Amino acid sequence: MWPNTRITKMLKIKYPIIQAPMAGGITSPELVAAVSNAGGLGSLGAGYMRAEEIRLAILRIRALTKKPFAVNLFVPTKSRATQKQMDNMVKILKTTCKSVCSDIHPVTSPYCPTFDSQMTVLIEEKIPVFSFTFGVPEIKWLKKLRHNKTKIIGTATSVAEAEMLEIFGIDCMVAQGFEAGDHRGTFIGECDDSLIGNFALIPQIVDNVKMPVIASGGIMDARGIVAAMMLGAEAVQMGTAFISCSESGAHPDYKKMLLKSKEDNTVLTRSFSGKLARGIKNKFIQSMVPYQDCIMDYPIQHVLTQQIRKEAYKKGQVDYMSLWAGQAAYLSSGVSANELIQSLDGDVKNIFHKGKALLMCQKNNIRTKS
Amino acid sequence: MWPNTRITKMLKIKYPIIQAPMAGGITSPELVAAVSNAGGLGSLGAGYMRAEEIRLAILRIRALTKKPFAVNLFVPTKSRATQKQMDNMVKILKTTCKSVCSDIHPVTSPYCPTFDSQMTVLIEEKIPVFSFTFGVPEIKWLKKLRHNKTKIIGTATSVAEAEMLEIFGIDCMVAQGFEAGDHRGTFIGECDDSLIGNFALIPQIVDNVKMPVIASGGIMDARGIVAAMMLGAEAVQMGTAFISCSESGAHPDYKKMLLKSKEDNTVLTRSFSGKLARGIKNKFIQSMVPYQDCIMDYPIQHVLTQQIRKEAYKKGQVDYMSLWAGQAAYLSSGVSANELIQSLDGDVKNIFHKGKALLMCQKNNIRTKS
Repeated sequence: MWPNTRITKMLKIKYPIIQAPMAGGITSPELVAAVSNAGGLGSLGAGYMRAEEIRLAILRIRALTKKPFAVNLFVPTKSRATQKQMDNMVKILKTTCKSVCSDIHPVTSPYCPTFDSQMTVLIEEKIPVFSFTFGVPEIKWLKKLRHNKTKIIGTATSVAEAEMLEIFGIDCMVAQGFEAGDHRGTFIGECDDSLIGNFALIPQIVDNVKMPVIASGGIMDARGIVAAMMLGAEAVQMGTAFISCSESGAHPDYKKMLLKSKEDNTVLTRSFSGKLARGIKNKFIQSMVPYQDCIMDYPIQHVLTQQIRKEAYKKGQVDYMSLWAGQAAYLSSGVSANELIQSLDGDVKNIFHKGKALLMCQKNNIRTKS
Repeated sequence: MWPNTRITKMLKIKYPIIQAPMAGGITSPELVAAVSNAGGLGSLGAGYMRAEEIRLAILRIRALTKKPFAVNLFVPTKSRATQKQMDNMVKILKTTCKSVCSDIHPVTSPYCPTFDSQMTVLIEEKIPVFSFTFGVPEIKWLKKLRHNKTKIIGTATSVAEAEMLEIFGIDCMVAQGFEAGDHRGTFIGECDDSLIGNFALIPQIVDNVKMPVIASGGIMDARGIVAAMMLGAEAVQMGTAFISCSESGAHPDYKKMLLKSKEDNTVLTRSFSGKLARGIKNKFIQSMVPYQDCIMDYPIQHVLTQQIRKEAYKKGQVDYMSLWAGQAAYLSSGVSANELIQSLDGDVKNIFHKGKALLMCQKNNIRTKS
């Protein structure tokens, strides 16, 4: 038997397992629906999607499942670029990526779909759960979401961010540890100052906020789920574990890279998007190391490298794809989302043998500094 | 009831808790003996100590406890310095540290006590447990230790290092996660490539070696101990948790810094010793940021900054002390080592309620990638 947590009740899910909202096509409607149908919470990573693409994806998810699911957006952040900086980065990318793509051009604002247009769809569609990264949305959006009874999940990488999220009265938050793949959610201070391993981050956030905390980063199997709960988390968010699933939109060669890894081969890089993110070290990341000071702000860098990633995907050149992955990617299974969740269920139940260990996961049952 | 692990039997200790061997005076004979008397394994961090100082400390520990204890040494690593580089660093330190110390001079080789002289004492004294960091000692020493029936503990920060340690046939190894305070033990490749959070590192090493693994980094309370065991560790090594203990040799103001911290305020730096280490961010670390390319190899940088740290200690200037600490330092308790271990015992027993959860900690009871 699994421990009861506030999260499962709040989000109306069977297992305290949230599939992380990875943007860039990994979280296909099929994956999202499969996770929700299996008793977890599927999440559409919609940060890069245009409003009408999001609407179509939501319709597709709803056609595939009657269960709750989440949609994730990126809270807009400021970006600046002079023409000279932009031209310089285009030149660098043309040189470093000439083997995969020559179609790289300067871009103009707006660099990506507007947050307002994306949010409008989510409000109209009355989605069950909304999650966000890179900050806190304007209060007007939070009000509309609450009016729709949409549950709201934020992302914190430090106690300062966790306390900020709590002030805004959202429902729960993801604590994103150093181990996590994909983008760092940091929105207060510099990313480099909020790189906290989960052994320290989970208790740190749990001890400082009242709302339930979802642990994320390096959690791939039942051992990780139970360990996160021991540290005070009431649910886990797993991203990398779902990338290799049959329903995910990740390139087959990207999945193969995950399945063949034996130990951590990831690195933090700003080179793909302008924001710090963790992925498998490849040729693109290495070739951009000398140009770190020239990397543009997010989302400009993201848009500049978009064509490269598209071409790399088409040609199956993993050396130029963004191979987001957490530090425990070597535990990837390659099964279907349903099989993964069922096997996690079996393993966790084996650990929480006959319910005798339930007391372990009750927040604050262990002495902490008061 | 605690789970049975191979470590407690092997090291003849009651609890699978090892007090980390922190060099630089923190691990006083009083602290080491108090931990061992309380049922853990105290460790003398003797890396910087001269042979005869080590002998005296061992005699003192033996006068205070009949229980097993460990002595830790640094495996020597290559260091090089031109006179010009040395003069440059002396100049930098004279400028950045003028408010605390003016007595900074170039140093000459040998920069620190020789490993052979240190090892000779450990062999003569037939210590119960030997632990080492920064590599693997020469086989002649391992043979002599084994002849003495001394148990041997290595330190790994990656699977590659763990596999290397296993080849040498030592008894068990510490897996040092990204969260850990004090020096990074990395000895294969660059430190920056072996920064792996414990959620990923513990299962990664446990899955790849046969010998028992001791988790270290960010473990401060029973939650951390149990979480580490869920991930497959058979013991924990706790450093920061013991720094604030009454028996530790740390400066009272350093202890105060640990006790008043509310969240992670540590950073990785090479500025004190030349090797990457985690400590509370202070003025010295910040003032050295512009000079990272001038930092000397270990132990040269360590010897050059020694006088600064000594003066800072005398004057109580925490801004110039090396305030080693892990990312969960905010959970420091400030009690005695015995009280800390007794309270951990109570909390862990509460978690491993009536022994019903014992099955959880048996290595490999959960499916892992085969």
